[in-house]
Amino acid sequence: MAKRILIIGGVAAGPKVAAKLRRLDSRAEITILERGEFLSYAGCGLPYYVSGEIKQQRELMETSAGVMRTPEYFEKTKRISVHNRTEAQQVDREKKEVKARHLDTGDITIFPYDLLVFATGSKPFIPPVPAVDLDMPDMELSCLDLGNVTTLHGIEDAEKVRWTIREKLAKQAVIVGGGLIGMEMTESLVKSGLKVTVIEMMDEILPLVLDPDMGILVRRYCREKGVDVRVGEKVMRLEGRDGVVRRVVTRQGSYPADLVILAAGFRPHSDLAVSCGLETGLYGGIIVDSHMRTRDPNIYAVGDCVETTNIVCDKSAYFPLGSLANKQGRVVANNIAGDEDIFPGGLNSTIFKIFDFTVARTGMSTQQAQEMGIDALYSIVPASDKAHYYPGARRVITKLVAERKSGKILGAQFVGEGEVTKSVNTVACALFYGGMVRDLSNLDIPYAPPYASAIDNVCVAANVLRNKLAGLMDGISPLQVEERRRKGDAILLLDVRTIPEFEKVRIPGSTCIPLAEIRERIEELPRNLDIIIFCAVSARGYEAAIILKEAGYSRVQVMDGGLAVWPFDLENKEERTGR
Amino acid sequence: MAKRILIIGGVAAGPKVAAKLRRLDSRAEITILERGEFLSYAGCGLPYYVSGEIKQQRELMETSAGVMRTPEYFEKTKRISVHNRTEAQQVDREKKEVKARHLDTGDITIFPYDLLVFATGSKPFIPPVPAVDLDMPDMELSCLDLGNVTTLHGIEDAEKVRWTIREKLAKQAVIVGGGLIGMEMTESLVKSGLKVTVIEMMDEILPLVLDPDMGILVRRYCREKGVDVRVGEKVMRLEGRDGVVRRVVTRQGSYPADLVILAAGFRPHSDLAVSCGLETGLYGGIIVDSHMRTRDPNIYAVGDCVETTNIVCDKSAYFPLGSLANKQGRVVANNIAGDEDIFPGGLNSTIFKIFDFTVARTGMSTQQAQEMGIDALYSIVPASDKAHYYPGARRVITKLVAERKSGKILGAQFVGEGEVTKSVNTVACALFYGGMVRDLSNLDIPYAPPYASAIDNVCVAANVLRNKLAGLMDGISPLQVEERRRKGDAILLLDVRTIPEFEKVRIPGSTCIPLAEIRERIEELPRNLDIIIFCAVSARGYEAAIILKEAGYSRVQVMDGGLAVWPFDLENKEERTGR
Repeated sequence: MAKRILIIGGVAAGPKVAAKLRRLDSRAEITILERGEFLSYAGCGLPYYVSGEIKQQRELMETSAGVMRTPEYFEKTKRISVHNRTEAQQVDREKKEVKARHLDTGDITIFPYDLLVFATGSKPFIPPVPAVDLDMPDMELSCLDLGNVTTLHGIEDAEKVRWTIREKLAKQAVIVGGGLIGMEMTESLVKSGLKVTVIEMMDEILPLVLDPDMGILVRRYCREKGVDVRVGEKVMRLEGRDGVVRRVVTRQGSYPADLVILAAGFRPHSDLAVSCGLETGLYGGIIVDSHMRTRDPNIYAVGDCVETTNIVCDKSAYFPLGSLANKQGRVVANNIAGDEDIFPGGLNSTIFKIFDFTVARTGMSTQQAQEMGIDALYSIVPASDKAHYYPGARRVITKLVAERKSGKILGAQFVGEGEVTKSVNTVACALFYGGMVRDLSNLDIPYAPPYASAIDNVCVAANVLRNKLAGLMDGISPLQVEERRRKGDAILLLDVRTIPEFEKVRIPGSTCIPLAEIRERIEELPRNLDIIIFCAVSARGYEAAIILKEAGYSRVQVMDGGLAVWPFDLENKEERTGR
Repeated sequence: MAKRILIIGGVAAGPKVAAKLRRLDSRAEITILERGEFLSYAGCGLPYYVSGEIKQQRELMETSAGVMRTPEYFEKTKRISVHNRTEAQQVDREKKEVKARHLDTGDITIFPYDLLVFATGSKPFIPPVPAVDLDMPDMELSCLDLGNVTTLHGIEDAEKVRWTIREKLAKQAVIVGGGLIGMEMTESLVKSGLKVTVIEMMDEILPLVLDPDMGILVRRYCREKGVDVRVGEKVMRLEGRDGVVRRVVTRQGSYPADLVILAAGFRPHSDLAVSCGLETGLYGGIIVDSHMRTRDPNIYAVGDCVETTNIVCDKSAYFPLGSLANKQGRVVANNIAGDEDIFPGGLNSTIFKIFDFTVARTGMSTQQAQEMGIDALYSIVPASDKAHYYPGARRVITKLVAERKSGKILGAQFVGEGEVTKSVNTVACALFYGGMVRDLSNLDIPYAPPYASAIDNVCVAANVLRNKLAGLMDGISPLQVEERRRKGDAILLLDVRTIPEFEKVRIPGSTCIPLAEIRERIEELPRNLDIIIFCAVSARGYEAAIILKEAGYSRVQVMDGGLAVWPFDLENKEERTGR
């Protein structure tokens, strides 16, 4: 007898399970219930649809061969029965059936199943921010009650924002939350001609994505692009008039706004699973085993509604990523078809575009490692994505993180205008295998001037980190340097670039002795001060530090990444000469 | 007492050993002997210098901070003594000294050493092709005796070609050898305004880089760019007049030429090592252990003059790659400094640009696996480098190769206009760890529409290959299909794209039944013929094959990669309708 497979959720993981299963089992009766109108659409493309880079809604819903993924498409080409606008309301695990309601007709249908798959996705977290309409000051409102306040979670949200922009109803947007979606929407709205303010509660933007020393580089870049980025500010209240938002009020100030995007993260959409007694984890995601099966042997769960394993630390994690949803979907289909398959877990590998910058990461940041009690070391390497002499080479800042005692890779972060996919993929793969820093140092990844340097960025970052792990190099981050300067510590900031480089631009208060002159001028350097050495990228800085140590200077550190990652003000020629 | 380290060779690996060693050991006396004029230059940048994309010779010799790597630079900033224009002529391993001759003065100097490093690089292989000057037909000449015949091995060669082009002394170039350098020079010369013919002796270009089914795609692309590419042709003779080349004669024909580039591969430059009794291997490279030490404990060897280990098969190999030279250099320096280090071997990872195509590979090709007696399976997947709906997405053909019985990854090849570094690096890293195809299938590499598809190309290629390994999909390559057609085998070529797609362009003699109609029209298909199914990329083709197999058709195969990798002539709308 044909197995009845019922899938709740028709956006990403659900249709993947269905399509793969159909290829493995021609007889299974496969049914998808989807609450929304749209099926199998590319949710990650929404910011580009809002900005108009993707012109037609249907482009997000077509196969690469240009066919719309309608219920009819699923029925005709895949014999998969799809009910959209149909909300699963109750699961009876004893009877093995799901009660669902058609959202337009109100009709209730009972769907029996042999195996059930939860693919219910995620829901945006709505921050508990009150709102007030100044025309009706006594009414208690939640932030979403005001007009032109929205999340960006589905096609409908994107259409709303697009319409607001097209009708010229918004000029000034405030994005609440400086995470990945918030930053993607920043580019999207700036490109749409809006003035954008981003408000992040934490001390730095992208707190779950990057360490602060990398996040600050993205923030500085956004400021250059005219975006007002505020960190360490908590939104206290939204204010509106005529039912439409007008102002965002934080503890520190207030910002005019006629469009507010709430981008405060996601939570697993696991309510239905919870209501039928399935177990959820620390993050509220459905608990599944490595086969993507819940504790109920007849129920699988997949995608943004589940918790998965963080491969780096072997702990439960919540990674709501479309790429993982698809991979998990294949595993579920294989298991349902009797071809045992295992999903090994994720690395929280993430990439996104913000203007001409790419931001990417995989594994753990230094901060995340520290929070887990892991003693981590890192390297920061600014370098070209291609051979430095090849036309069009662009800079990338690479940060590689490892466990100090073992030299095991923990993660990596990348920021810059250059190509970083090649690098983040490489480190992700090494993390999958539990690789060591020294592995990356010798990894045979290909080289040609249009694509990489002879020693690729990842290899250089590994080499620098090996130097640190071996105790050959003692680093200090620009953030720590600035902190010490702010406290008034007696430190010497030694720039070992050439005089012309120094004349052009420099850190205020720094001293220049070019690397080539260090040996002969070493006695100029005080022995009673902490000396922090750097150059453009701190490669020459490292050589200078070695020379100083040989000469008996013990209080010597190298500033990670040099001038290229210094996120604070610089002094240029004009300022020094007074012109 | 300070150790005396003598390094023979100053281009890539040698200076790397020296510079890294200086950072580890401030007291060592480090000396480099270099036969040529130039030090530490970017040899891989030469094709771009010839084409003028890199404008100044010095750009190839500068550090990323813009400092020229002259002997004075090495002396001053690194205290490394460099003797250029100085040829090491004899090594006395007993006395531990090297006799060298200054090429300008003729002076002989004896350099004593404690440790010696061979970094003598490679030399171009000169094919044993005779030449004749038609003005002096009785003189026996070798091909390099004619003017405007050159290899492309060093700055001097590049200058010669550049000068020939600038002085308008060449209009028609023949490149002898369709390998990596030959193809890089093809772009370089076409961009310089020359008409270019490439002559490759083997049946397909890039024989050491790609399998023929991938190589033919590059050849077809070069033809579209106006390059005359000849395969399976052996050059028999060069003909000249007035001492300058005029014609290249092969067994099949003759080609006018006023510039001939010999690009027939490289051999290790190991003569001096051989003459002092060091052992060389199958490829003529110096044999070293994993510490890069020769059988003489006082002699290391590094870079293009050594043989290394092919990690995939654990056999000796010759991979003359700048990236490996640099990595090996670091290992040698570490070992000399007493910090034991191991070079794990290489993967022959290669990448190069030809017009707007990128060609990349790592590990073993199907052909190379077969030559070693390994039963290999592969997948071919044409797909976008970004989400298919994202503006600017470009196609890449991915070929993934694995061992049939174990599912162990053997290698991968990539061809196309899209970004492939991310993919080749990923597979290279997986090969380093001895990874399985299923690992790539679930690998958490990051996704966002501007950078990848939700299921990245490497993951899709792994999924298709898993289907093949599991016996779910039986593939046949376009080359095999064409071979069967040529032999007159009775096969049905079934195209399952839509009618409009089929009307636009199709394989001559193919039949179209769209996937959506297959189930209802299945009886139209003959049961007594081999049916080969495909679509644009053979994803729908795979679904159709499953449907046919369920219906009892047993003689069904899927054509790998579909129309996207079909390298032979296509029929378009106009041809069919007779217009």
